[in-house]
Amino acid sequence: MISWLKEEGKDRDVVVSSRIRLARNFEKYNFPVKISIEEGQSVFNEMAAVIDKSHYAIFKTKDIPKIEKEMLVEKHVISPALLGHSDISGFALSQDETETIMINEEDHLRIQVLHSGLSLNEVWHKINQIDDRIEKNVQYAFDEQLGYLTSCPTNTGTGMRASVMLHLPALEITKQINKVLSTVAQFGLAVRGVYGEGSKTMGSLYQISNQVTLGDTEETIIKKIENITRQIAEKEKNIRNSLMEKNKLEFEDKVFRAYGVLKNARMISTEEAVRLISYLKLGISMDVLKGNTINEMDKLFIEIQPASLQFINRLEMSDIERDIKRAETIRNKLI
Amino acid sequence: MISWLKEEGKDRDVVVSSRIRLARNFEKYNFPVKISIEEGQSVFNEMAAVIDKSHYAIFKTKDIPKIEKEMLVEKHVISPALLGHSDISGFALSQDETETIMINEEDHLRIQVLHSGLSLNEVWHKINQIDDRIEKNVQYAFDEQLGYLTSCPTNTGTGMRASVMLHLPALEITKQINKVLSTVAQFGLAVRGVYGEGSKTMGSLYQISNQVTLGDTEETIIKKIENITRQIAEKEKNIRNSLMEKNKLEFEDKVFRAYGVLKNARMISTEEAVRLISYLKLGISMDVLKGNTINEMDKLFIEIQPASLQFINRLEMSDIERDIKRAETIRNKLI
Repeated sequence: MISWLKEEGKDRDVVVSSRIRLARNFEKYNFPVKISIEEGQSVFNEMAAVIDKSHYAIFKTKDIPKIEKEMLVEKHVISPALLGHSDISGFALSQDETETIMINEEDHLRIQVLHSGLSLNEVWHKINQIDDRIEKNVQYAFDEQLGYLTSCPTNTGTGMRASVMLHLPALEITKQINKVLSTVAQFGLAVRGVYGEGSKTMGSLYQISNQVTLGDTEETIIKKIENITRQIAEKEKNIRNSLMEKNKLEFEDKVFRAYGVLKNARMISTEEAVRLISYLKLGISMDVLKGNTINEMDKLFIEIQPASLQFINRLEMSDIERDIKRAETIRNKLI
Repeated sequence: MISWLKEEGKDRDVVVSSRIRLARNFEKYNFPVKISIEEGQSVFNEMAAVIDKSHYAIFKTKDIPKIEKEMLVEKHVISPALLGHSDISGFALSQDETETIMINEEDHLRIQVLHSGLSLNEVWHKINQIDDRIEKNVQYAFDEQLGYLTSCPTNTGTGMRASVMLHLPALEITKQINKVLSTVAQFGLAVRGVYGEGSKTMGSLYQISNQVTLGDTEETIIKKIENITRQIAEKEKNIRNSLMEKNKLEFEDKVFRAYGVLKNARMISTEEAVRLISYLKLGISMDVLKGNTINEMDKLFIEIQPASLQFINRLEMSDIERDIKRAETIRNKLI
């Protein structure tokens, strides 16, 4: 169901995923902010002609049912912004869902590669090849001084946004998270909760990404994010260990209570489920809880989101029906 | 461990227990409020001589270790007041713990019989026989006009306090409990939470007892309590049924979550445990939860109280150690 999420990847118990996306535009067309429907269709058609059909399936956004689109957003495979341009937008998706080429999102092309764990180098290597292959057939909007030109000036230059998604429950529990996040900001990186705004996040999930796309090379940016991520992961793991040493019983109590509720509830909201699954992940990473894996829990995070839940069950559901199905899904998944 | 609690008894899913106690005093001694140590010892010795040793074990309160005494209070086998007069007080206890004769509590004798379920008639029959047997050997303080004389005038007359302990979670959940309790008060009966004061109780347990000991016969008083109890039990069961019909899923959710927490927690306070076990009882009574019985849960209510927990484990424990042992006890008891 969520094929890009795998058990493998460095620091997998802290780093859920690594993602890079490149913003690219055709030189000969107006950028999507000013594009006509006809031009938009031409962009889509040119990309459709260029893309390797044995590797990618290509879709027009408007042809995809609403729930399926929302599910793809929940899986982080396409962006929410793509749905905002659905008259002319589309996307190509690799079979393993690690590669997406979004067409007529904010830019003509948004190329994305997504892997589990801390794997920005691998992801960079892969996305670089995809970009090169496309560039053989498409004349990109490029300026010798500025680099790749984009709809929004914050993307101009490399056109690259590299990010990692981190699970930081121990930093949250010990209230050290804000200090860590402000340190990250001092390095010119952006931090935000994966769900919700700012440092108010659900499930202790945070995303770190580069703010600057001009001036540094892609490799420099990636190296910086990797280094800082590795330090945060180290800190998170140290605190997990010391929580276990100093308050083993309280720690186990929290984890097992979360398990008990998830394994028994008959109705559960996304918010509560995500909060409790976060505790299970913490418990699994510390070997307190056995049976399920971190990766299974990361998949569950996504599978219980509203659209994914409905898509998997091939059923449109009311809020309460979702709460019931969510509880059932979790009960069945937990060992 | 708690031998008076049995599966049997009428309306057992609502009525935990029925209890009658008789206040009696020797004519020839000062009442305990004014008694000398020597007189107190004489009362104890005379009772010790009269009591059937093949049926009762007899103890001086001061000879019993503190934790054991507190445990007997938690089991409702002796009264907390008995511990307040420990220089001269004592008690005789039948092997099955359904009969207690407390000596030098507030009165020279407090005879108590305790059964599970709604069984005041049976209890009355039994306590009446015990009373008669004692009266053959002891000259009671008795007034033709007033009846049995007691330390406190509120007990004078029959000297009888009959009570039932009710489990009323559905009336609580639907916020109808206060209306029911005030109706009970209008019939001249007293209602109180079994734990805590007034209508603030733990575990949805309430005790109904007669306030008046003068004027009515014992049989009349008992009949009144039985009738009202039967009506409340009926109402409680009707609401349980309608909760199940109208909000089956919410109902099941609450019960299973309580089960999940109790089956998994590594530390738990008495208060939380009692609150959650109350939900389990409700779930068992509605056949939502299978495996454990109402009676096992009633025993568990007592076994997790601080002194009982320490007595069972033959260990003095700190607050936290008790929270841990309590959680372990519950995990082991739940199927």
